[in-house]
Amino acid sequence: MAMMVALTVHGWQSPGHCYRPVPRISTAARKGCSIQGFLKDTTFLLKTSKGDDELHLGLMMKSLGGGHGNVLIKNKTRIHVMSPEISPPSFAVEFLDAWDDEYGGIVVDANSLPSSANAFASALRASLTDWKLKGKKGIWLKILSEQAELIPIAIKEGFDYHHAEPGYGMLTYWVPDGPCMLPDSPSHQIGVGAFVINEKREVLVVKEKCPCNCSGVWKMPTGYINKSEDIFSGAIREVKEETGVDTIFLKLVAFRHAHLVAFEKSDLLFVCMLKPLSSEITIDEKEIQAAKWMPVDEYIGQPFYEEDDMSRKVIEACIAEHEGHYNGFVGRRLSSKLDGKLSYLYYDCSSSF
Amino acid sequence: MAMMVALTVHGWQSPGHCYRPVPRISTAARKGCSIQGFLKDTTFLLKTSKGDDELHLGLMMKSLGGGHGNVLIKNKTRIHVMSPEISPPSFAVEFLDAWDDEYGGIVVDANSLPSSANAFASALRASLTDWKLKGKKGIWLKILSEQAELIPIAIKEGFDYHHAEPGYGMLTYWVPDGPCMLPDSPSHQIGVGAFVINEKREVLVVKEKCPCNCSGVWKMPTGYINKSEDIFSGAIREVKEETGVDTIFLKLVAFRHAHLVAFEKSDLLFVCMLKPLSSEITIDEKEIQAAKWMPVDEYIGQPFYEEDDMSRKVIEACIAEHEGHYNGFVGRRLSSKLDGKLSYLYYDCSSSF
Repeated sequence: MAMMVALTVHGWQSPGHCYRPVPRISTAARKGCSIQGFLKDTTFLLKTSKGDDELHLGLMMKSLGGGHGNVLIKNKTRIHVMSPEISPPSFAVEFLDAWDDEYGGIVVDANSLPSSANAFASALRASLTDWKLKGKKGIWLKILSEQAELIPIAIKEGFDYHHAEPGYGMLTYWVPDGPCMLPDSPSHQIGVGAFVINEKREVLVVKEKCPCNCSGVWKMPTGYINKSEDIFSGAIREVKEETGVDTIFLKLVAFRHAHLVAFEKSDLLFVCMLKPLSSEITIDEKEIQAAKWMPVDEYIGQPFYEEDDMSRKVIEACIAEHEGHYNGFVGRRLSSKLDGKLSYLYYDCSSSF
Repeated sequence: MAMMVALTVHGWQSPGHCYRPVPRISTAARKGCSIQGFLKDTTFLLKTSKGDDELHLGLMMKSLGGGHGNVLIKNKTRIHVMSPEISPPSFAVEFLDAWDDEYGGIVVDANSLPSSANAFASALRASLTDWKLKGKKGIWLKILSEQAELIPIAIKEGFDYHHAEPGYGMLTYWVPDGPCMLPDSPSHQIGVGAFVINEKREVLVVKEKCPCNCSGVWKMPTGYINKSEDIFSGAIREVKEETGVDTIFLKLVAFRHAHLVAFEKSDLLFVCMLKPLSSEITIDEKEIQAAKWMPVDEYIGQPFYEEDDMSRKVIEACIAEHEGHYNGFVGRRLSSKLDGKLSYLYYDCSSSF
């Protein structure tokens, strides 16, 4: 016998940051139950198909917001049975499990989407109607790759892609009239170049394995940073992977901002001055044809750089930095009250301020 | 009567950059035809269902590669009929229209995918077999949102998302054994902050409309850059939009690199020193609660900044830059031989090098 219950979480506290925490029932706890709505921050309206007068559920409180994806408190809860009757037809419609975000929008729970296309289509339609009535703004709908058959259904309802990566597609829907105010999808790939120069004024250079006409040129090691990797860490890692040389970060010398690089995306390339801690070279044969220490004058004297204003300027800046008459940026880890996190700030520390 | 034709493009020239150009038949031209393979750079093997002994097709030559998405030459062409017979069964299988990329991979033409799910499934399977036999590496399959019903089919064949944005999902498949060497999807959103200070040492500050506990704080104008927009242009635009004040770019003072900001992506925030060209304020009431010129000491004296190391350091650097004892980066447009493009390089130009 299905029944409606109101469920209040006791003993729950806000985690004390600037985003309003929103409750969400953990998937494990809600087998046989579905959320019908939120009465207030700590009380849900719940439908259960079980016949118990009283249920004890494990609950997981979750807050979501810029930078805060996660978890918080597990708790046991009492349930007050509102109506131990068969639900009236108006409650028979399933909604998607979802929670509010801090911008007046909705985040749908990717882990509890209906498994059948039909059930998803009707729940999505019912939820959209509900969100529109409530004046919600942006709807975020993440669909895991294993449920990709739900994608065309969501697109038919007016959703479109925001971004995607291996494992999921993130779709959005903007409810209000007027232009969509949701942020764009990530637009940039972050590259690093490493200028490694030793006390003999020799630069660590590589020849890449690539079919381009630059393949004969001796270049500084370059690569893309990994997910959530810091710029200087990426530079140190790339040098180690490509040449086997250990380094430490000194300064960020310059960076290039290029557009329409790959599939219409943009690219930032940060050039870091690194100090070598070892000299022996072991190349990564998958990516690199050869690597060596090359006298700096021979390096910049290569004909390729005479015709490449960008690279020449970068190398000249690196040499000036090495000779002490240039002001690159250091990286310092600082905390921010805005998001409660430690991040790197890159700035000139040569001046006293 | 279907027939196989070999088709050579005459009068076609390489555009002279480092990527090997690859030919592709324009959608409009190929009604009733399908590409069966490339014999060499300028010759296709073509199947046509038309019975003509000779066809005149409009051809579009296209090269694809890092940064070069583009159309080059339209041409008329002669066709030599290889076999004016009904195609043997081995040629009856449809392949997806696609071209080689410069890394040994394949780019599928999003604009000529079969419209039926069944036809797509069999063409994809046949093409995958063909690409595997040919030792291809990464396969790029862009599926437009209006054909989203093809997504689950591709995922069933082993594709997964690379990235997506409104209008399409880009899927990839890595053919060789061993780890996928394709670049990651774009990982960063680029923000800008603008420090605008006038000759009376007043800073242009705003109060944002947001539910955060920072909403009472007077801050510098901030925002995200648009697609393919330069950092300094984004800063100038945000100031104009939020406050109505015209500015020019002087220096890039510092930048912050933060991770796990929104949906596990990262964020770079570049702080630019701008010089005001006007002083009258007209706020954007959608985003901004209030804006004004505030004495710099009052601005940095706000209690919020005492507890926010990151913001305080940034403001101190901006003030030092304004007072002439700090070395921010200028932005200069330079050409690069590597990609044949003009891009901005940000670097310290205070030193003579």
